[in-house]
Amino acid sequence: MSESVERSVPLALMVQTPDEPGVLHALTGVLLDHEANITHVDIAERCDGLSTVYFELEDVSGDAADGLVGDLESLPIVRVVERAPSFRKVYGKRIIVVGGGAQVGQVVVGAVAEADRHNIRGEKISVDTIPLVGEEELAAATRAVARLPRAVALVLAGALMGGEVARAVLEIREKGIIVLSLNMSGTVPAAADLVVSDPVQCGVMAVMAVSDSASFDIARQRGRRY
Amino acid sequence: MSESVERSVPLALMVQTPDEPGVLHALTGVLLDHEANITHVDIAERCDGLSTVYFELEDVSGDAADGLVGDLESLPIVRVVERAPSFRKVYGKRIIVVGGGAQVGQVVVGAVAEADRHNIRGEKISVDTIPLVGEEELAAATRAVARLPRAVALVLAGALMGGEVARAVLEIREKGIIVLSLNMSGTVPAAADLVVSDPVQCGVMAVMAVSDSASFDIARQRGRRY
Repeated sequence: MSESVERSVPLALMVQTPDEPGVLHALTGVLLDHEANITHVDIAERCDGLSTVYFELEDVSGDAADGLVGDLESLPIVRVVERAPSFRKVYGKRIIVVGGGAQVGQVVVGAVAEADRHNIRGEKISVDTIPLVGEEELAAATRAVARLPRAVALVLAGALMGGEVARAVLEIREKGIIVLSLNMSGTVPAAADLVVSDPVQCGVMAVMAVSDSASFDIARQRGRRY
Repeated sequence: MSESVERSVPLALMVQTPDEPGVLHALTGVLLDHEANITHVDIAERCDGLSTVYFELEDVSGDAADGLVGDLESLPIVRVVERAPSFRKVYGKRIIVVGGGAQVGQVVVGAVAEADRHNIRGEKISVDTIPLVGEEELAAATRAVARLPRAVALVLAGALMGGEVARAVLEIREKGIIVLSLNMSGTVPAAADLVVSDPVQCGVMAVMAVSDSASFDIARQRGRRY
């Protein structure tokens, strides 16, 4: 996943249309004509009968971009096409922190402080959280990380996690997500890449593990406990 | 935006295909045939030449869902179609916290602790953050909130913000995003819905403002300072 994060900056477009069936099919038809590679797509706003579809496109050079925008604007359903900075440029890589409120809060204090230091030097690292309890809900949140755009690492912050959550951890590691765990009871620590006892330290290490500039190689840390 | 968050649970599908041009156009053609309303779309994974496209669809009843999935599976490009819990169900509404690392961390401590209490009672509220400095970058992050899926509120956490950031605040408020600001220098506090001096309190109030269960009406709080 980090590979796709590091590709060149894509062409980012916001296309406003009526909120009606067939819009996405019509818009993607134009993109296909221009052989643009869709790397991100979102339906950003839907209100007052209008819908804004947001695309990030690769393999579109400067001149080709003008032609593509012109062809989108020629569609009868299209009201406005605007260029925007890409989410990758604005929010960058995402670390997701999931678990009990008390511990999630402390992991984020560490992660945000460390991300601040990296972002000041030109990186973009975001830290996203949800406080959750329950094996089923934690497993669903863990599995969903693999399909969250720009997510590269998950921190599981709690006092007891195992069973289905541990299986979900192994699944998303297969898909390239780095998983850190607090030192806790249950089988999640054994399933994670790295176990850290102090939540602030765990947040800091999560950022170091995904940063382009830190000399902290998760491959060398795998299986360790701090 | 909160309106769309409260709609009925959609049909969520993950569709694995080769990573090649025209995939999204072909898939949306099938969805159009079934008159399914696309409320969310993402390209979730792109590796080993394969791509997973994630859709959330409305207006698809139980039986119709089976027919739709069958028609997707019949496309030559489709490898696997899996049903998944929707992001709305897993991560719910999002509050975004942007600004200086020290203050973002403290706002999140308050917001996560308060979200924990709501989520235990069945809501789903996420708190997402990025530490950032600089007027241009803060303005871009602020404007981008209006096109982040499921985002309902923004907290600006810093000691000095104004100019282009304040203009961006007014723009996203027009689009239905609730904006809270710490009590800081610059013109951002005057542009925000609500100003709170203590960062932990500001995080707590942001969650209360977007919660379905709290009796805290942002319309009655507008323009206040705590």
